[in-house]
This record gives sequence, structure tokens and C-alpha cells, in this order.
Amino acid sequence: MSDASSPPAVDVVGIGNALVDVLSHASTEFVDSQGIVPGSMNLIDEDRRRTLYAATGPGVEISGGSVANSTVGVASFGGSSHYLGRVRDDQLGAVFAHDIRSVGVGFTNALAPDGPATGCSLILVTPDGERTMNTYLGAAELFGPGDVDADAVAAGRILYLEGYLFDRDEAKAAFEYAASVAHDAGRKVALTLSDSFCVERHRPSFQALLDAHVDVLFANTGELLALYEVDDVDLAIDKVRGVADVVAVTCGVDGSIIVTPDRTVRVAAEPVAHVVDTTGAGDLYAAGFLYGLARGLDLADCGRLGSIAAAEIISHVGARPEAVLADLIPASMEAAR
Amino acid sequence: MSDASSPPAVDVVGIGNALVDVLSHASTEFVDSQGIVPGSMNLIDEDRRRTLYAATGPGVEISGGSVANSTVGVASFGGSSHYLGRVRDDQLGAVFAHDIRSVGVGFTNALAPDGPATGCSLILVTPDGERTMNTYLGAAELFGPGDVDADAVAAGRILYLEGYLFDRDEAKAAFEYAASVAHDAGRKVALTLSDSFCVERHRPSFQALLDAHVDVLFANTGELLALYEVDDVDLAIDKVRGVADVVAVTCGVDGSIIVTPDRTVRVAAEPVAHVVDTTGAGDLYAAGFLYGLARGLDLADCGRLGSIAAAEIISHVGARPEAVLADLIPASMEAAR
Repeated sequence: MSDASSPPAVDVVGIGNALVDVLSHASTEFVDSQGIVPGSMNLIDEDRRRTLYAATGPGVEISGGSVANSTVGVASFGGSSHYLGRVRDDQLGAVFAHDIRSVGVGFTNALAPDGPATGCSLILVTPDGERTMNTYLGAAELFGPGDVDADAVAAGRILYLEGYLFDRDEAKAAFEYAASVAHDAGRKVALTLSDSFCVERHRPSFQALLDAHVDVLFANTGELLALYEVDDVDLAIDKVRGVADVVAVTCGVDGSIIVTPDRTVRVAAEPVAHVVDTTGAGDLYAAGFLYGLARGLDLADCGRLGSIAAAEIISHVGARPEAVLADLIPASMEAAR
Repeated sequence: MSDASSPPAVDVVGIGNALVDVLSHASTEFVDSQGIVPGSMNLIDEDRRRTLYAATGPGVEISGGSVANSTVGVASFGGSSHYLGRVRDDQLGAVFAHDIRSVGVGFTNALAPDGPATGCSLILVTPDGERTMNTYLGAAELFGPGDVDADAVAAGRILYLEGYLFDRDEAKAAFEYAASVAHDAGRKVALTLSDSFCVERHRPSFQALLDAHVDVLFANTGELLALYEVDDVDLAIDKVRGVADVVAVTCGVDGSIIVTPDRTVRVAAEPVAHVVDTTGAGDLYAAGFLYGLARGLDLADCGRLGSIAAAEIISHVGARPEAVLADLIPASMEAAR
């Protein structure tokens, strides 16, 4: 294992639910008729996956997984990244492994030879561009401490953890272990709260991890309100200030608010001509922000890279960039190249 | 089985290679470096599939298969269609079956419980929008006469056959059988030549099927030149005139030429602001044309529906329509509704 004196070889190491997205267009009436809250992420079992899939229209399969998307975004900016996640050795597992490796992200977990199939998220995209996710975890459900490659974690400048994994105790244990490895090696630990319903289900666990381990926190306004059980964003920001060194709060079309113990930096959203599919907006914001942080940019520039990546991802279907994000770095931001 | 006196219940019954497309952006240099002819369809084995996939960038998986795309297009125009093809009972087979059924196309072939995996086509899309296909047939390779549902064929107004299947004797036998069933029931038989290289490999077989069974023929100019071993399109059109009752020759940006024993009808291409991916252009031209023919439209209107569907498909990635094609039928074309 690397020790605290080795320079980090990789910008960002991510851990998350490894999934292939199945994106379908759906009417808001259809989402309502299925009893699903628009914009939410719902965990579903194999039976529900089969029933819901049979009821949805034709799909497009694209590799996904929140933090996996972020590591791909870091690579697209020209950074280096590594991903830890669990898929099975089946057709969709091969798709996931191919897609993430083909853009240069390190992915060395062995594909599971048996057990549940590779996980997938049935994502319903309504005409307003909003996405509602129905996730069958499959093989990802078994991710535990044994899947954490300590050498890989210690070699990363920033360890980035996906809040969705808080739904499972084995995955929480993996987070604790990975965070300890990262801190022992002198690295930063970042976390995304992922989903307000997930925060509500596991509030004390999130708060314990925040207190013990988190240096950089990502949350959207809904998640932050859920964390503190308040209904005023300014109040929630007062509460979160200082909980981590850096807190980046995403506010949709209003951009983001970056909060440190002694500063508040507001960053505008980038304009988007036509929002097609908001899947991955938060994942790609985090990609730009973490890339900037790993390269030592100031917080306003980190946030701007986040806005740029989010704008790219919501202008097309799917949560993996179609453009080379490095080409979208503003000419003025020389330190980002 | 239906007899010749039953009215047809379905507009179009298609037979083809059932495939899932894996679409990736690639540079022209990459296509050249792989020794592939741009714009062609190449049959590859499992080893080559693995090697080529490892070398390509991230992909998007969308159900494909030339004639399968056409039957989906017919359904999108508001017509009824049925598809005969062979996939395995695996993840990509489930994707194929779901996608085609979810738009209302009949698909009743059982998913194979063993044998090769569901076939896929690795499609490299270059910046000019041209697509080059590398097809691993997998389960589709075993399609034979036993997979032809005679009742389904007899119930269709038009039987539509995919020339790509000529690469295999068992599939040719299935064509002979299906064409006989269709004609015995008083139905029309349509064929697409599919690919100039396929025509060159199997010229005598194509000519024999044309002579014996084909009422409606689809070909692009390259395929027609290959069929007659000439290098002048007017000469090839002279030769093909009368070989089938209707011959529709697609000419890319120049639209199409419809040839009957005593008439020649020229149809313009529909304007497209930005060609993204030409995958499926011919398949969707055939969809519009066959839908029009099944509904008794005149040949100029059949060709126009073909142009409209082709324009929709080349304006986005993938060979399955994103728009509802029925919404694109011109207001003046009342008989097409």
C-alpha cells in the first residue's frame, strides 16, 4: 500500500453502485400511474424490474451509476480516475466494464462469476427532461469491504463516495474502511448525499460519516433540507457550514452555492438551449468540481467546471458525456489544462 | 393456416437478423486502421467481436437488425407488423424482445434457451454520419425454416425479407419456405438486397430468388450495380425494370427512383438540418414505403413516406425512430392515416 509520503497518482477514486441505465421516454401520466415520485430514485427488486420494464416503451442502454459517471467525467476533462464497483460477468457487466475502461478510467474489480445479474436502472424521462430512476441493484448489492482495493484508494488524491450505497450495511462498512485508508494516506474524502429519500432513510448514518470522515460534501438543496429536517435552504446552509471543509450545494437552474467555514461562493448555471434529460446532472457537476479541486483550482473555478459539465450532460440522453469535456474548459482557465 | 381467401390481418411481416446495435463514435482513421471498408457491413466471429469491441470507445446499446427496424417503423406510422427472428434468452435478447414488442410489433419466436448469445452489431459512426457495421450474428445465425411461423406469414399483406440472411443456407431455405407460404396465401413478397458485398457473395442466389418470388425490391445504387456487375446506374435500372412489379432504388441525398415495368417515379429526399448517424436510413425508407404500399397509396406517396422516415432516423443516433412517424405524415396525405 502507498503511504502518506507517496504523491497521489490518480486525481479521483470513486466507489458506487455499478449500473447500466435503460432510458425510456415516458409521459408524466405513466410515471404517476406507476405510483412513482417524479425525480426520485427507487430501489426495486427483480419482480418489480420485470413488471415495470414490460410496461415501459423502447429503451436505450447506456452505462451509468452516479459516481461511475463522475469518474468518467473526470477522465473526459483530462484527469485520471479509478472506479470501484461490482458487476457480474454477463452481457451488461461486459458493457459496463468496456465503457468505463474505454475512456481511460481504471476499473480492476473482477466481474463476479455468479450471483445476481449486473444491476440496471430503469430511467423514465418525461417531456420536461426530468428523470425518475427505478434501480435494480443486482450484483452491485453485494459490494462490501472486500471489494475495496486499498492500494487504489491510497493512490487517489480524492476518494469520492456515493450516498446511494448507504442503503446497505456491507456497503457502509466498505465506506468506513475506504475512508480510513484514504485518510491514513493523507488523502481527501468526498461524499454525495445522492437522494433525499436515501438521506431520510439513513440520516444518522450520513451524519456519523460526515462527522468522522468527509472533507468535501455534495448535495442538492432537497438532500440538504432532508439531512437537517428543515424547509429553508439558508438555514440548512448555516447548519452544514463547517461540517466539511467544502460543501457544494447544487440548485438546478440557479447554479450552485459553495460553502466553506468562512466563505460562501455562488456559481451560475451554464445556459442550455434545450434540456433533453437531466440524468447525470449532479454526477457531472461533481466531476467538474472534483477535477478542479484535484488540480488546485479556486472554488469558483471548480464550481464553473461543474456547471459546464452539467450543462453538457443535460443537453442529450444519458449520463455519460458525448463531448470531450476538456474541449469545454474556458480559454481563461489555464490552470485547468 | 390462413388461406388465400382470408383478408390479411397485418400490414407487414418481416424476417431478418435479430440484433442489438452497439453504436460508438469513431474517427475515419480508426476505421481505416481496422482494415474495414467505410459504409460496409462485415460479418465477424466471437474473437473478432471481442478484439474490436476492446478497441472501440464507449457505446450506446439500441435494438437493431435491418428488417426489425423496418417493422418498428411500420408500427410507428400506425401500421401493424410482425417480426420473425432469433435471439437467445439472455440480457440482450430480453432487450431486443422488449423493445420490439413495446412499440406493438408482434414477436412470438421463443427466445433460445441455449446456443450462441444474442447477436450484436458493433457500429462505428464517423464524424460525417456514415456508419460501418461489424456484425456478430450469434443466435441469429441459426435461423432456419423451423423458425418461420406460417400462420403469421400468411396473415401479412406483405412479407419482407432481409438480404443479409443470404449469407447462410439455412436462412435461404427459410426464405424459400416463407415466400412460398406468402404466395400461396395470395400475399406480396418484398426483398432488400441489404449490402453490396453481400450481393457480390451471393449474386446467383439473389437472382434466383428475384426470378421466383420477389414482387417488391429495395436496393441502393451500390447494391443494384453489384447485382448486375455494371457501373452505370441508368443501365442497372434498365436491367432491373420488370424483374419485380416495383423496384425502389435509394440514392442517398438524391432521394429514390421507383421503377415499374412501365413507369419511373423520382422522389426527393427530405431535407435534414444535420446528419448525425445514417444507421437505418434504408431500413426506415423501406418502412415508409411498405406502410404506404400496404395502405394502397400511389408509388410517389409511398416513396415520400420512405423519405420522411429516413430523414427522421438519420437526424439522431440509432436505427429506431425517436419521433412518432404517424405525426410526420403530411396533412395532404389523408389516405395514409
